[in-house]
Amino acid sequence: MRRACITGGAGFIGSNLADRLTADGVEVVVVDDFRSGRREFVADLLKQTGATLIEGDVASDAVLDHALAGCDTVFHLQANADVRFGFDHPRRDIEQNIATTSAVLEAMRRNGVERIVFASTGSVYGEPAIHPTPESCPFPVQTSLYASSKVAAEGLISTYAHAFNITGVVLRFVSILGERYTHGHVFDFYRALKRDPTRLRVLGDGRQEKSYLYIGDCVEGILAALGATPAGTFDVFNLGTDETLVVDDSVRLICERLDVTPEIEHAGGVRGWPGDSPLILLDCTKLRAHGWSPRLGIEESVLRTLDWFERNQAVVLDEAVAR
Amino acid sequence: MRRACITGGAGFIGSNLADRLTADGVEVVVVDDFRSGRREFVADLLKQTGATLIEGDVASDAVLDHALAGCDTVFHLQANADVRFGFDHPRRDIEQNIATTSAVLEAMRRNGVERIVFASTGSVYGEPAIHPTPESCPFPVQTSLYASSKVAAEGLISTYAHAFNITGVVLRFVSILGERYTHGHVFDFYRALKRDPTRLRVLGDGRQEKSYLYIGDCVEGILAALGATPAGTFDVFNLGTDETLVVDDSVRLICERLDVTPEIEHAGGVRGWPGDSPLILLDCTKLRAHGWSPRLGIEESVLRTLDWFERNQAVVLDEAVAR
Repeated sequence: MRRACITGGAGFIGSNLADRLTADGVEVVVVDDFRSGRREFVADLLKQTGATLIEGDVASDAVLDHALAGCDTVFHLQANADVRFGFDHPRRDIEQNIATTSAVLEAMRRNGVERIVFASTGSVYGEPAIHPTPESCPFPVQTSLYASSKVAAEGLISTYAHAFNITGVVLRFVSILGERYTHGHVFDFYRALKRDPTRLRVLGDGRQEKSYLYIGDCVEGILAALGATPAGTFDVFNLGTDETLVVDDSVRLICERLDVTPEIEHAGGVRGWPGDSPLILLDCTKLRAHGWSPRLGIEESVLRTLDWFERNQAVVLDEAVAR
Repeated sequence: MRRACITGGAGFIGSNLADRLTADGVEVVVVDDFRSGRREFVADLLKQTGATLIEGDVASDAVLDHALAGCDTVFHLQANADVRFGFDHPRRDIEQNIATTSAVLEAMRRNGVERIVFASTGSVYGEPAIHPTPESCPFPVQTSLYASSKVAAEGLISTYAHAFNITGVVLRFVSILGERYTHGHVFDFYRALKRDPTRLRVLGDGRQEKSYLYIGDCVEGILAALGATPAGTFDVFNLGTDETLVVDDSVRLICERLDVTPEIEHAGGVRGWPGDSPLILLDCTKLRAHGWSPRLGIEESVLRTLDWFERNQAVVLDEAVAR
């Protein structure tokens, strides 16, 4: 890899990936419109030689042509990540997740970019019959517009890989935690407890089992999956740990770290919201067979995240941070 | 069913379905923008009591609200069906197949419509490992934008069915033949031979195996699948015959029927075009278990189609007919 474009490169995963690639000597072009990306996350990066920022919307062909010129690889991470309130704006996932992926693929054709790595999600499996869930598990039933839009984008990438001999790598992530994490329920709980440490409302029954992966392990997994995919082929890899953590246990970790003892109120029901999955646990044997494995367990990932929250109150408590 | 809306209701499948429902006493609202639908196909229908035409684009919320008012069921058949030249207009499948399905689903919510039946395609399976291919076969690799967009639309319908307890029925069709068929290679061969009966160019090596279903059997299959799906659930059914016909054999049938002996030139390769599938054969056991089975075999379907061509030269040879 000589020069890579990262869409959503000022976001949580994108900026961590950008740091890693730059440290490795890769020229990095960050594209971000700062709807949910943060300038703080790329401030140090942009002091490095070979790192560039293009501020703009990846829906724009001009922005994409500018960003992709000379690149051999694009990491397409930009997305609407609002899983929970998808039905409040039912066209947003189509526009921001499907149409933009199409725009990136067309820009790759125009600019001769040979490889795309795409951030998909373990929620494409809906509520699968098999746990841990392997990549080959059928997923006939979608439970969120977000996951539907990721399924659609995966299909587009597969189509282009097949038609134009580009390399397409899809990663189905569990929830990612760690430095710069600013979206999801560990974040929501932390903010709520900072506002009011005496009580906390937890959606669902608190027994939903979630799987998490530390951002450092995620970035290494992305690169391992890319390395494991032969040129001109398409492949899909799960990326997660072999553990789960129930929601109530992450609440406990946060309360201990903050030294608070709130009254916990459970909203009830096995799902936090319509489309929430009561159990996400991915089978990551496939990528592990290529030498990757996560270094951090879930509890340590949560604790590192909380440490980062404590050191970055200005970001974490900023009301403008994307939910 | 009391009142049903059929998007693409002046098209091949839509107009046949509209005739069948009207004969059954169902009020039918046909929505069509006549981009590929034909006024001839609904002229008789619209003389019946209870049949209405709304001329307009299903991308328009106003058109949809008008069409869906008072309906209990929507058959969403409108689509861009240009499989072969998808990459010439890469956004068309997203706009016409994905975004319009989203628009229909939102209009269902606004208007309290409880059931949607969706025309998908056997090409969602890409080049599957299993033949005949059952509904549960994973389909990790997409080979056309058309199929990708159908996968995406299936996911949206599944999401809405899950979230709002609507009934969602997806039918994955093989190619459909019969009266009013005006799109596909039997049609292309017939027109080419009418123009020049001395020679015919066949894409691929002529050995691609295709599966076809007669339109009458298709319409009955749609209704059987709807009847087999409990209220408030989502299900997927393949719809085809247990036979295949190689492309060269359909050429032979057409030549015999037209009494011509052209020189056949094969373009070569196992695929007619990038994304063409060398073998489509669906396992339709699931719908057969609900009492449906096709009455006509493939050869008889081709012959009936050719008879209809002969009786409808004005339509078939009209250069404006959608390809």
